[in-house]
Amino acid sequence: MRTTAFRRTFALFLLIATTSLLTALKPKTQKVIFFGDSITQQGARPGGYIMKMKDELEKKGLSSDYDLIGAGVGGNKVYDLYLRMDDDVLAQKPDIVFIWIGVNDVWHKTTSGTGTDPDKFEKFYSAIINKMLDQHIKIFLVTPAVIGERTDFTNQQDGDLNAYSQIVRNLAQKFHTGLVDLREIFHTYELKNNPGNKESGILTVDRVHLNEAGNQFVADTFLDALLAK
Amino acid sequence: MRTTAFRRTFALFLLIATTSLLTALKPKTQKVIFFGDSITQQGARPGGYIMKMKDELEKKGLSSDYDLIGAGVGGNKVYDLYLRMDDDVLAQKPDIVFIWIGVNDVWHKTTSGTGTDPDKFEKFYSAIINKMLDQHIKIFLVTPAVIGERTDFTNQQDGDLNAYSQIVRNLAQKFHTGLVDLREIFHTYELKNNPGNKESGILTVDRVHLNEAGNQFVADTFLDALLAK
Amino acid sequence: MRTTAFRRTFALFLLIATTSLLTALKPKTQKVIFFGDSITQQGARPGGYIMKMKDELEKKGLSSDYDLIGAGVGGNKVYDLYLRMDDDVLAQKPDIVFIWIGVNDVWHKTTSGTGTDPDKFEKFYSAIINKMLDQHIKIFLVTPAVIGERTDFTNQQDGDLNAYSQIVRNLAQKFHTGLVDLREIFHTYELKNNPGNKESGILTVDRVHLNEAGNQFVADTFLDALLAK
Amino acid sequence: MRTTAFRRTFALFLLIATTSLLTALKPKTQKVIFFGDSITQQGARPGGYIMKMKDELEKKGLSSDYDLIGAGVGGNKVYDLYLRMDDDVLAQKPDIVFIWIGVNDVWHKTTSGTGTDPDKFEKFYSAIINKMLDQHIKIFLVTPAVIGERTDFTNQQDGDLNAYSQIVRNLAQKFHTGLVDLREIFHTYELKNNPGNKESGILTVDRVHLNEAGNQFVADTFLDALLAK
Repeated sequence: MRTTAFRRTFALFLLIATTSLLTALKPKTQKVIFFGDSITQQGARPGGYIMKMKDELEKKGLSSDYDLIGAGVGGNKVYDLYLRMDDDVLAQKPDIVFIWIGVNDVWHKTTSGTGTDPDKFEKFYSAIINKMLDQHIKIFLVTPAVIGERTDFTNQQDGDLNAYSQIVRNLAQKFHTGLVDLREIFHTYELKNNPGNKESGILTVDRVHLNEAGNQFVADTFLDALLAK
Repeated sequence: MRTTAFRRTFALFLLIATTSLLTALKPKTQKVIFFGDSITQQGARPGGYIMKMKDELEKKGLSSDYDLIGAGVGGNKVYDLYLRMDDDVLAQKPDIVFIWIGVNDVWHKTTSGTGTDPDKFEKFYSAIINKMLDQHIKIFLVTPAVIGERTDFTNQQDGDLNAYSQIVRNLAQKFHTGLVDLREIFHTYELKNNPGNKESGILTVDRVHLNEAGNQFVADTFLDALLAK
Repeated sequence: MRTTAFRRTFALFLLIATTSLLTALKPKTQKVIFFGDSITQQGARPGGYIMKMKDELEKKGLSSDYDLIGAGVGGNKVYDLYLRMDDDVLAQKPDIVFIWIGVNDVWHKTTSGTGTDPDKFEKFYSAIINKMLDQHIKIFLVTPAVIGERTDFTNQQDGDLNAYSQIVRNLAQKFHTGLVDLREIFHTYELKNNPGNKESGILTVDRVHLNEAGNQFVADTFLDALLAK
Repeated sequence: MRTTAFRRTFALFLLIATTSLLTALKPKTQKVIFFGDSITQQGARPGGYIMKMKDELEKKGLSSDYDLIGAGVGGNKVYDLYLRMDDDVLAQKPDIVFIWIGVNDVWHKTTSGTGTDPDKFEKFYSAIINKMLDQHIKIFLVTPAVIGERTDFTNQQDGDLNAYSQIVRNLAQKFHTGLVDLREIFHTYELKNNPGNKESGILTVDRVHLNEAGNQFVADTFLDALLAK
């Protein structure tokens, strides 16, 4: 009887040990926040890039590994992110954050006279990065993709988008963060897929916001970055 | 001998007591920081409004009561103040701060496309006030005075200056701070002293920055507020 | 018989003479063109101010005296009027023209960076007036009414609207044209009817374009000017 | 005696005939007007590109063939050229006109909110060309060169400068005028001579206005066009 009791106890022990081991080996679900403007706000809607990333993770059997959360607000500039980062990002204790900002910092110069000076863009962006790094969050910086899809740099804001993207690249290097250089990646794509030099309709519906192909393209690009980390 | 010793001790006691009393009665020097843009930066130069305030305090025999410090930087907008307030204001442990900002938040909309949206103006201004109140600093908010001295509201930025001044007035009321309503005070002065509806030369040299009369007028106005508190 | 023939002839003569006389006395139909921007474009639609003027003329039995024609194009600035005046106005040989322009010259400074400098506004406006006066057209200049209906001059473009309206008033005086000072007339109306200092909903739907009350108000105001001439 | 008289007469005849022939063969002096903005205004000053062209023509012994006249006015946009072309160009009956405009049409969008919409830029430019062609003037269109000399298209106005230059190229093709594509020519030069990607100091003093090298480069380029015609 004592042997039987021992065996039972031992079997129970093995079960618990194995379960514990499996639990320990199984990666914790990573909380990923996409922090941005209207492009990201739309990315969290059906058909949006965040939704497409979820579908893709599901197909790969990785859906329990990542919890993808949209935190985009229309019209946001870099200092809007700064002002709401405590509530919308830090309070949620994410493991990973994609910061995708800059289009409105450039665009609003023309549409409302309230764009962001490049040196202020860099200062607030740095402040955001510093606060996140203090919380040991893994960060991906994303360069602003396009305002107009023409490939010959005749879109009105191309000069500023190129300049502000360079600021973002420099920040990624300085702070050793991840970088998804959508500005460059979109340009390469457009050179191949926009032979007519159209200003919209390839990856965007309206020069800025993503169409079906654009959402898929961004989803694939972000997923590569996420899984490669 | 005991009497002598007692007398000495008592005399010493009286001396210490009197000194302590005088020290207690004598007001501590109040550190006053003027926090603003190029108008304040120029205010700290010879002939500037801060220098004139010092002269005035000297005449009144109050120069040891107040330590006036200029903290103006050309081109500053409300979020520039926010970004440098830790270093330039809080670290100096002031007792009183005059916050005079807003001209560039409005003006830069036209001159570089990088003005400040009214809701962001209010948010950053509130953040500055909150941080200062946390340190028990006595605050005076100052409305942006003029961009152009015409009295009939035909200066290009009059609409915005009126609107942003209203935001400042509302903040003063909300946070129970002091208020120096230069926008209103200048307008009243101009109605009397600018019958030709000129756009500069009454209180400014160039529609924005103070001339001799302007610096004297601001010095008098700020001093009234400071001493009336 | 001769008498009879004579009487018939004489009666016929009287008939013809009277008819001719009446025709001569009856005023020729005056062709009136409303030359402007989207406000005028909408004014020609059902419920628009031009339509309401027609209704009003009908009620007064004056509908055959005036032929009212809308010539408004959305987004137009003063130099757009200049560029299309030959085709859209002069070629139609109008007797009277209402020129209502200026909102976009001011507004586009902020919304696209392509507003009109005040000196160019005056130059192109003068060129339009000169060309019309050469054709002996009776002209009414109309000041730009509102961008925002707040009564305390806190609408962003109030400074410029006041300034550009003053340019229009000066032109009316210089060229001895008619003037409908909508800027002043709207302001007086708003002071009475907008106690809540709202920025739209009194005479406009969206701070600029006329609502039902606005169209009626402009129709009445323009009709007074037209019939008083 | 008759022989002598004959000889004298014949000699005189030969002299007159030869002189007449030489006069007939000698090309008439061509009046060349440079029509533009502050860059051209400065080009007419000592050391400016127009002065350098004169020096060059002198060296080539061609100074009597061309009368070079500067007609640049600071701050001019395309419609300023339109407004003053009758007085400053047509009234002077030029044979050849270089039209160099566009920098302010783009730049003023940002610096004062009064840039020129691309479609209006094209309309006024076309109107200028049409009026000149009516007077059988030989025209060279010149694309706007630079606002900032960085070679990687990170200058703020690069997008618009590229776009407006394309409009100018299209106009040259449409109206069969000459074209001096300074935008392209400067870019090629900068790629070779600005390895540090500086924003000024290569061909300009301040990102826009020509330095010594810039004036020489433009003088050479314009002279090539002028003599090649």
